[in-house]
Amino acid sequence: MVAVYPGSFDPATNGHLDIIKRASKLADKLYVAVLRNSSKNCLFSVEERMSQLQLITKGFPNVIVTSFSGLLVEFVKGSGADVIIRGLRAVTDFEYEFQLALTNRSINPDIETLFISASTKYLFLSSSVVKEIANYGGCIDDMVPQEIKGVLMDKLRGSPC
Amino acid sequence: MVAVYPGSFDPATNGHLDIIKRASKLADKLYVAVLRNSSKNCLFSVEERMSQLQLITKGFPNVIVTSFSGLLVEFVKGSGADVIIRGLRAVTDFEYEFQLALTNRSINPDIETLFISASTKYLFLSSSVVKEIANYGGCIDDMVPQEIKGVLMDKLRGSPC
Amino acid sequence: MVAVYPGSFDPATNGHLDIIKRASKLADKLYVAVLRNSSKNCLFSVEERMSQLQLITKGFPNVIVTSFSGLLVEFVKGSGADVIIRGLRAVTDFEYEFQLALTNRSINPDIETLFISASTKYLFLSSSVVKEIANYGGCIDDMVPQEIKGVLMDKLRGSPC
Amino acid sequence: MVAVYPGSFDPATNGHLDIIKRASKLADKLYVAVLRNSSKNCLFSVEERMSQLQLITKGFPNVIVTSFSGLLVEFVKGSGADVIIRGLRAVTDFEYEFQLALTNRSINPDIETLFISASTKYLFLSSSVVKEIANYGGCIDDMVPQEIKGVLMDKLRGSPC
Amino acid sequence: MVAVYPGSFDPATNGHLDIIKRASKLADKLYVAVLRNSSKNCLFSVEERMSQLQLITKGFPNVIVTSFSGLLVEFVKGSGADVIIRGLRAVTDFEYEFQLALTNRSINPDIETLFISASTKYLFLSSSVVKEIANYGGCIDDMVPQEIKGVLMDKLRGSPC
Amino acid sequence: MVAVYPGSFDPATNGHLDIIKRASKLADKLYVAVLRNSSKNCLFSVEERMSQLQLITKGFPNVIVTSFSGLLVEFVKGSGADVIIRGLRAVTDFEYEFQLALTNRSINPDIETLFISASTKYLFLSSSVVKEIANYGGCIDDMVPQEIKGVLMDKLRGSPC
Repeated sequence: MVAVYPGSFDPATNGHLDIIKRASKLADKLYVAVLRNSSKNCLFSVEERMSQLQLITKGFPNVIVTSFSGLLVEFVKGSGADVIIRGLRAVTDFEYEFQLALTNRSINPDIETLFISASTKYLFLSSSVVKEIANYGGCIDDMVPQEIKGVLMDKLRGSPC
Repeated sequence: MVAVYPGSFDPATNGHLDIIKRASKLADKLYVAVLRNSSKNCLFSVEERMSQLQLITKGFPNVIVTSFSGLLVEFVKGSGADVIIRGLRAVTDFEYEFQLALTNRSINPDIETLFISASTKYLFLSSSVVKEIANYGGCIDDMVPQEIKGVLMDKLRGSPC
Repeated sequence: MVAVYPGSFDPATNGHLDIIKRASKLADKLYVAVLRNSSKNCLFSVEERMSQLQLITKGFPNVIVTSFSGLLVEFVKGSGADVIIRGLRAVTDFEYEFQLALTNRSINPDIETLFISASTKYLFLSSSVVKEIANYGGCIDDMVPQEIKGVLMDKLRGSPC
Repeated sequence: MVAVYPGSFDPATNGHLDIIKRASKLADKLYVAVLRNSSKNCLFSVEERMSQLQLITKGFPNVIVTSFSGLLVEFVKGSGADVIIRGLRAVTDFEYEFQLALTNRSINPDIETLFISASTKYLFLSSSVVKEIANYGGCIDDMVPQEIKGVLMDKLRGSPC
Repeated sequence: MVAVYPGSFDPATNGHLDIIKRASKLADKLYVAVLRNSSKNCLFSVEERMSQLQLITKGFPNVIVTSFSGLLVEFVKGSGADVIIRGLRAVTDFEYEFQLALTNRSINPDIETLFISASTKYLFLSSSVVKEIANYGGCIDDMVPQEIKGVLMDKLRGSPC
Repeated sequence: MVAVYPGSFDPATNGHLDIIKRASKLADKLYVAVLRNSSKNCLFSVEERMSQLQLITKGFPNVIVTSFSGLLVEFVKGSGADVIIRGLRAVTDFEYEFQLALTNRSINPDIETLFISASTKYLFLSSSVVKEIANYGGCIDDMVPQEIKGVLMDKLRGSPC
């Protein structure tokens, strides 16, 4: 099973890392794929996010960090993968994810989406929440890997907020 | 990846068969495991349900029909499997399934639950709905495999409803 | 438009009456149809519920109180109706009602289900809640029509609760 | 029954057309009303969307394509209609639609909102999804009427995405 | 603020204890009130559950363990309390709790229901889940207080399951 | 109990006022705290909103109108409060509020969030809905206090909508 775990990862949280750990045990090869989305306003560049992901996944030999633009199913097919991995948190997530999975299946029925439930302690964690707390000087130690904490602090220090 | 797809399958529907097809492509070996639950009132015996499942999955060489009682995670571990497969339909499903997955993970963190979304056309299909329609003489041709339709009709013909 | 509003009505509440009022304005003829369901344990007999409904709908000349058993869509077709009316309250309702509507459509695509949202003040009102409150002597004046209040009190007075 | 089916229709999908078909069977006259909303960024102009709707509804003699701005209930009253038609898809939809229906009822209690469930195969289809897939060159044949497919492709061909 | 925290507590879990801890900090006096419900099939008697609750809440001087039957709002008023405390877990919970709160408010508008969110780690924990796992010999160490674990094991040892 | 009821209040609705009434009965002191959020586009300035809130809460001696920016839990701690009050309406609300409450608890476990359910008649009321209706000349008499109605009409009269 070759799988793709797509996302914005702006920045990667402990919740993302948890899904990567779980998925890398099940897949022979796992692509962690940063979405290049020009219309979304991101804090870190795609390249910065890829470096961060490489740093925090270096202990997983079958994880490959990459990026993509355009239709996800096209990228999955082009990578020789057959599975998309998505983490599930709460109900709002679920409906959006369901729509994505069924839409992707309608475009390419050979690619399956597998959902993994987030760990209970990360159920309500998101990159936006992390950024907002960090921005106001709150403690994010349990929310992101140590490597991410450093770069996030550096990035926000220079920001006018 | 060795996976277990547990359920009541009373009887198996096209929705169940759809999940079995998808999961059997991803897993090296897939156990379809009928739950032996003495407190639940089933139309078919566990043995009947196993026979039906064997009939409709005979085209899938890596699918093994079996049954279990007690804690699911114990059965999964005992089978040498590492993954539980669950189909997801609507939101009500989702919360129940989430609770099950997180509870199973708290008992045995080595076993992962993977959710697959049902096909759009089976999103609102369930064994109970099929039985109710069949019971009142409605048409269930698109809801169950042909083999199941026969045994379901036979079973209900003799019933006093 | 000839419509059927099916339900248990055990007993009818102000919420049911509100839906009947709204639907009777839209339909040329509206059947209020009590489900004969031997497996459900009801407080009032089907005949008692039909009498109560006739009493509270006597001001609506195009409303006909009736009963049915078996598949709803068969009853709708047999009545010459083309529409099923259902009241919607909260999200849990919605999923169940959606499943019913799509199942009914799969049995007979010519029959449409139309949902009307309950009035805000009846959004969390149900026959079960009314019975529970009445049973313990709570005030149900705003929850059921006066005629229903009388028969409900009579019925519960004799009950061993 | 004179009904209004309001929406953005940017562009109309097979899901919209499905609701129009169902609603036009129930209503004596059905207005399909494009919302003129200056604050929403649309791909097609109101006039283009009206032309498209006229094209795909020309087989329904009781359907009238029109547009409106301001409060929906004012438009409905001004059109001599008494019913608003809304398609329901998933749970997120449902809450938003419920809020709209109850708000509209609080402004004008004489106007009723009727919800029709979308067909199972269109449950997760939306104009935004169609545009995103078309934009990246994915196949939208099962998602929009043929006439819409043409204009959508023309529109996107010139776009810088 | 005098508050009542009602429930079945069959048995009390760490999730219940967590809500008791939080609520006892906010209230001057907190009644933990076991519901006497003859129609619900409980593993422990009301008296056993009260003893267990007394044991695990003995460190909280303002907590009083009691029981009640009939309408909750009557009990609350009779106790001189003005607040009902309820723990919230997932969405299904929420709708049920909302219905209860609004129903109770319609019976007695002077009594307020306050919801406290469960701790993340107890979000999917329930007495039923604990009993099922214990019944099959699974580990419940993180799910119930030590005192409850002992009595639960004793109770189930003699059971024929 | 010293409590904080935070929000945008742009403008305050009858729903907000209802929560303030309920909360002010339970708390010894209640801060109604307007969020200073430079990134959110508001109709009224923070100062205007504070004046409006002072006007409509002048009958509640233990209510103090104030404003805050930055992390809510920091403001709560700085005010000597121990409780955050939030009104709950529908399911979408609930998930967002849950995430906020659990995030705030992870930053400061000493501060508790208490949820109060909105009155049934305000369940689907929001500041945005009020502004949209007022903007198009609809009647908002049941939706906002009289004092707010005046300033809202004044503000919108000059606006180019």
